[in-house]
Amino acid sequence: MELTNEKPYVIGLDMGGTNSVFGIVDQRGTIVAQTAIKTKGYPDVNDYVAAAVEALQPALDVVGGIEKVRGMGIGAPNGNYYNGTIEYAANLEWEGVVPIGELFEKALGVPARVTNDANAAAMGEMAYGAAKGMKNWIMITLGTGVGSGIVVDGKIVYGSDGFAGELGHFMVEPNGRSCGCGRRGCLETYCSATGVARTAREFLAKSAAPSPLRDLNPDAITSYDVFLAAEKGDALAMEIFEFTGEMLGRACANFATFNSPEAFVFFGGLCKAGHYIMDPIKRAYDANILNIYAGKAQLLVSSLKGSEAAVLGASALGWE
Amino acid sequence: MELTNEKPYVIGLDMGGTNSVFGIVDQRGTIVAQTAIKTKGYPDVNDYVAAAVEALQPALDVVGGIEKVRGMGIGAPNGNYYNGTIEYAANLEWEGVVPIGELFEKALGVPARVTNDANAAAMGEMAYGAAKGMKNWIMITLGTGVGSGIVVDGKIVYGSDGFAGELGHFMVEPNGRSCGCGRRGCLETYCSATGVARTAREFLAKSAAPSPLRDLNPDAITSYDVFLAAEKGDALAMEIFEFTGEMLGRACANFATFNSPEAFVFFGGLCKAGHYIMDPIKRAYDANILNIYAGKAQLLVSSLKGSEAAVLGASALGWE
Repeated sequence: MELTNEKPYVIGLDMGGTNSVFGIVDQRGTIVAQTAIKTKGYPDVNDYVAAAVEALQPALDVVGGIEKVRGMGIGAPNGNYYNGTIEYAANLEWEGVVPIGELFEKALGVPARVTNDANAAAMGEMAYGAAKGMKNWIMITLGTGVGSGIVVDGKIVYGSDGFAGELGHFMVEPNGRSCGCGRRGCLETYCSATGVARTAREFLAKSAAPSPLRDLNPDAITSYDVFLAAEKGDALAMEIFEFTGEMLGRACANFATFNSPEAFVFFGGLCKAGHYIMDPIKRAYDANILNIYAGKAQLLVSSLKGSEAAVLGASALGWE
Repeated sequence: MELTNEKPYVIGLDMGGTNSVFGIVDQRGTIVAQTAIKTKGYPDVNDYVAAAVEALQPALDVVGGIEKVRGMGIGAPNGNYYNGTIEYAANLEWEGVVPIGELFEKALGVPARVTNDANAAAMGEMAYGAAKGMKNWIMITLGTGVGSGIVVDGKIVYGSDGFAGELGHFMVEPNGRSCGCGRRGCLETYCSATGVARTAREFLAKSAAPSPLRDLNPDAITSYDVFLAAEKGDALAMEIFEFTGEMLGRACANFATFNSPEAFVFFGGLCKAGHYIMDPIKRAYDANILNIYAGKAQLLVSSLKGSEAAVLGASALGWE
């Protein structure tokens, strides 16, 4: 009997700032059992791991216990593939360097691998989603921030320190919007969900055009509100997506010079805006791409369900 | 007897728009014989290959003939590693797609591999120069244009089509200077030798400051003239390098988000400007680097002689 048949499952953990979702995944990429705990509320990371292991028990019972599990993959903010650590994650309670892989290995008795959330999403997309079979491509995650996973020759680019692939912090506008990283003009200050809300406030302030967005408290406007307004035919909302897509399409045309990708795959809440965001991305990409790369890359939306992609992606690490 | 002892040499060809330099290289990276022909003047590429083979004979005789040669590596403008071709090179006489690898294979009877000139320089640097032993780093060539070779896990990034790594055409300034590629704001319009000359003309026009550069015909100013003026203590010339280095350092800080390099290695005529260019590059890099990458990458100047690096780099392909 093959090893993979004796241990036909892996655990995938999608750790977000708020929630941690665990999936037990089989070799075909089916999540056969799932559970979740809060990420917040455990000032001591050991308590977090203990709570996770406890919450995992019923899910593990479904597949016959931890004996049936080959390994665990963890996608976490600032997750470091080389070190198995979470390092200086601004959105988590634990400061400094957390050896999260080692802690789970000890608690569960199976090997654990760590990567960051965007790389996990890229692995999920490559194993089970829109990038199946692709060797050179770029994943762009559009959430609260903008993340990326860069793939060269079928492998995630980790670089010299495990932190490669931070295209959300590519500075696309000299002296542009201030970013949480302390610098200015980073892509994520424009093209994340919060970037779209920022653009909405800017556009509302500098124009007098009527818009249903004016009925909302400016500080509470979300990218989803902008989408709803666009759906009602609001010209200002469409302009906001046009601006966002133009920035992102131009940035991607630039990123193509790095690995001449066969595709960009976009993932995350902002993709729900559909053609309002994807059409301007495509127009700006085509208008700005260097001629040798023209027409070579597909611009795709993730084909995985948002809740599943990150868990599946993390789980893919568990097979390594 | 080992194969490598029977065939202990490779041929490296550095093909430029004007000259083609051939070196016979041993396993330690010593160029044991060298020859050159003009690249221009052969409208039919077959005539170019025939002239090259003829010119190579005396050099081959030095090592005991083509029987002693394991393979050939060719670094050429728009050289494509996957296809062994030169494709639509603006600075060469041959139009369209030229199967240069195949032509040399047939003419010499040894395997031939092709890459572009910047990737060849990167291979030379990694095999024999400043990037020896490095796995993740970026080569930036500062010549008439700006070229790049991106290295991930010890291998040149070729991407989906063999044309990856064109950072000279990264658009660093929205609506910036017009570029030969038909777009605007490409890095090479600022940071190549011709970009420096362009900056000189701009700075001379918009300021009235005295400068020895004013004694020259503006259209004939070269980056070397700017260097000579800086050496004489000319403030305007230093400002020109400051501007150039600032652009390049900021761009490199952005490029670090791709592969988190352990080094950038700069190569080409502009490096002769020494600290006038390297100091502002370093200052701008440090001022703009994302905190997780801070202090991680060395900013180095190529340690190979200009004339040798490209030949050595191309020759490294001959061992593959």
